[in-house]
Amino acid sequence: MSQSKQLHLNLNFLNAGTFASAWRWPTSQATDYADVQYYVRVAQLAEKGTFDSVFLADFPALSDRPEYRPFQSLEPTITLATIAAATRHIGLIATASSTYNEPYNIARRFASLDHASGGRAGLNIVTTADKQAGRNFGIAQPPAHHVRYERAAEFADVVKALWDSWEDDALVGDKEAARFIDTRKVHPIRHQGTHFSVEGALNVPRPPQGRPIVVQAGGSEDGMDFAARHADAVFSVAHSLPDALDYARDLRGRLVAQGRSPHDILIFPGLVTVIGSTEEEARRREEQLWELVPIEYGLQRLAGILQVDPKSLKLDEPLPDNLKLPADGMQTFFKGALTLAERGRLTVRQLIRAQGGGTGHRIIVGTPEQIAADIEEWFRSGAVAGFNVMPDVISSGLEAFVDHVVPLLRQRGIFRQDYSGTTLRDHFNLARPARLAAPPASIVPKLRSAAGA
Amino acid sequence: MSQSKQLHLNLNFLNAGTFASAWRWPTSQATDYADVQYYVRVAQLAEKGTFDSVFLADFPALSDRPEYRPFQSLEPTITLATIAAATRHIGLIATASSTYNEPYNIARRFASLDHASGGRAGLNIVTTADKQAGRNFGIAQPPAHHVRYERAAEFADVVKALWDSWEDDALVGDKEAARFIDTRKVHPIRHQGTHFSVEGALNVPRPPQGRPIVVQAGGSEDGMDFAARHADAVFSVAHSLPDALDYARDLRGRLVAQGRSPHDILIFPGLVTVIGSTEEEARRREEQLWELVPIEYGLQRLAGILQVDPKSLKLDEPLPDNLKLPADGMQTFFKGALTLAERGRLTVRQLIRAQGGGTGHRIIVGTPEQIAADIEEWFRSGAVAGFNVMPDVISSGLEAFVDHVVPLLRQRGIFRQDYSGTTLRDHFNLARPARLAAPPASIVPKLRSAAGA
Repeated sequence: MSQSKQLHLNLNFLNAGTFASAWRWPTSQATDYADVQYYVRVAQLAEKGTFDSVFLADFPALSDRPEYRPFQSLEPTITLATIAAATRHIGLIATASSTYNEPYNIARRFASLDHASGGRAGLNIVTTADKQAGRNFGIAQPPAHHVRYERAAEFADVVKALWDSWEDDALVGDKEAARFIDTRKVHPIRHQGTHFSVEGALNVPRPPQGRPIVVQAGGSEDGMDFAARHADAVFSVAHSLPDALDYARDLRGRLVAQGRSPHDILIFPGLVTVIGSTEEEARRREEQLWELVPIEYGLQRLAGILQVDPKSLKLDEPLPDNLKLPADGMQTFFKGALTLAERGRLTVRQLIRAQGGGTGHRIIVGTPEQIAADIEEWFRSGAVAGFNVMPDVISSGLEAFVDHVVPLLRQRGIFRQDYSGTTLRDHFNLARPARLAAPPASIVPKLRSAAGA
Repeated sequence: MSQSKQLHLNLNFLNAGTFASAWRWPTSQATDYADVQYYVRVAQLAEKGTFDSVFLADFPALSDRPEYRPFQSLEPTITLATIAAATRHIGLIATASSTYNEPYNIARRFASLDHASGGRAGLNIVTTADKQAGRNFGIAQPPAHHVRYERAAEFADVVKALWDSWEDDALVGDKEAARFIDTRKVHPIRHQGTHFSVEGALNVPRPPQGRPIVVQAGGSEDGMDFAARHADAVFSVAHSLPDALDYARDLRGRLVAQGRSPHDILIFPGLVTVIGSTEEEARRREEQLWELVPIEYGLQRLAGILQVDPKSLKLDEPLPDNLKLPADGMQTFFKGALTLAERGRLTVRQLIRAQGGGTGHRIIVGTPEQIAADIEEWFRSGAVAGFNVMPDVISSGLEAFVDHVVPLLRQRGIFRQDYSGTTLRDHFNLARPARLAAPPASIVPKLRSAAGA
């Protein structure tokens, strides 16, 4: 049984590609990472492959390893607005931090992107664990994990209420009667909460999608509860199909506990793809990409995930025994790394590699046929709506996916031949939500009223 | 003597147009205010007229009179990114509030827009006096005028230091040597100030313009000091040429006091244009536009500027005597209204009208010849670099300006036949600024160092 009739594919567009060495590949240009025209060309290629969406991860600070590789640089909604002008169908998802933004600004920016793109915007809300980001916003020590998630939940409440603050027919536009907006149909949200106090209403009409798609990424308890309450889609981590099935069961249970249907959410595990016309060619490509990753980079990144001193990790020995789940770090990647290491009895060097070039996501190396078969197996298991596709190298790996994997998925009858709708909600097969005049008190206890004058 | 060899023109793009009745004009569409394609078409028309730039004013709250007229709705950098993709030369200026944003986010967004547009971005920093905005950001009572400007000055210090945080050649991009960024050329700013603490560096390379153009608007003492220290251009208010000359003398004196050349700033007074093929036709057009403005709207707007109860204003009587300059309001428009009223001994009704349909800016009504002659006179006086052109109705008034006034300005030899450069700095004839490794302590006392590791 499949979660929905058609597979869904999102491009996780990490500058030059997922491998830290992607920028060193012959087809890549070092300048691409800050060149908006590069992002436009890649999004057009993904649209040619009828992907549901492109996703730009984000982080409001300079990566701490810019000497080794490109990083997310341009502010992603600027990039997505530029892509919107040069594409017609593909969805446009960006990360924004609930810790380092005000909800009014983010609600407005994504509502505007939704209008500018004709209903193709998605907002991935993250809580931004990293200390570096805090120091750009006057915060020496980021709030604790549960406080960040408490703020994120209230942030999402406020953002959604602002998107709902206009009735769909509030614009009258009657030139004769000199009536522009019917202000009885525009409602201040009058939110008074723990983290925010927001009067409203938004100064942007209700978005074409009603609400832009809300995405969550992160497998902590708090993160999954947030997803169950707020998300239309999740970007997850799963290194095996049993793990993916467990995750789906867990997440869907939480949806039911929130009064939602268990299938009201699309699950997209990350999938790093290394494609060759033969399996041997694919393996050779992986080998070459791997040789181009400075081992110090992989070591530093793993140490960052585990929150240990890089010196405590010996490349050709197993992980140290005494690792503790960090209270305030990226818990998903921590758990994923530990599971991989224990299952395979891996050395640090093997673990860095098994993590998909340091990405923390599952890596698949093979022919288009092998990859299409794997995708179909996972899809038909019901564990996933599709994949967050992470090409090894964007400049050649996405082309291989679009030209050789996508046709096979279509032949197998699980992926669209063409877009059947125009909005991201259409692609995700999610209905346009009705406006909540007053969010139920049980769900939003601190939202006094969204139905005031 | 002219301030510079060529006149400069900026389009002050207020949705349907400057007149509150612009949206009711036969050529206007009510839905345009939130339709990004409308903004694209208008910017393309301004580019056809070789305008230096388009400017989107902004305000992070819903206008309090949406029943009467359109307002600035879509987040302006989303709109400008969309325009950038559909134009090649025209500069792209937007307002951002220093009171309701973090400098890291704004520095990044405008640096990204500068990259996306090939060096055409401009940032108009405003302090946002209005109470409504504060209530969307948890602030019941906005900070006092001088505190807002103190924060704005520090905000501009931080934003500029972040734009300067990368040396121009920090990208190495050496695939062979596996060196991406030379991190010795990327410098945390380590700012510790009164309002902000920002570690840096920015995660965006130095913008194509070095720094996007910084604009200031507002004629208070604090505002002019801010402009003298930080601005490349000002959007000013001048109802007469002597006023404009006084303002220019005052502002240039402040530049000298800051150690800048008196001509290092471009002055753009607002100019509301009502164009007819004969003077009579122009007057009739003004009459018709005026008849379409609900008088309650004009009265409420004037009362807002004067910070009095609308009921205290009698339409056919002069202004009350006891008006006091608001400590925390929009001082420029207050002073402008009072000067106009006193000079012309105007009734409230006449004042609303003399203010240019409620805009507070000078209004000129006439033929293309009359308008071109007026523009040339002001330009040759040396008081102004050009004008912040405010068409009465965008949908027909801008076309008239581009088709009929611009050719006359070219014939008079004061306006470009075509763009000679590609960046907004090129159009403004301003050099790309050298990066300040460490801002002088006298100018930025609280910026510890921009040259750290």
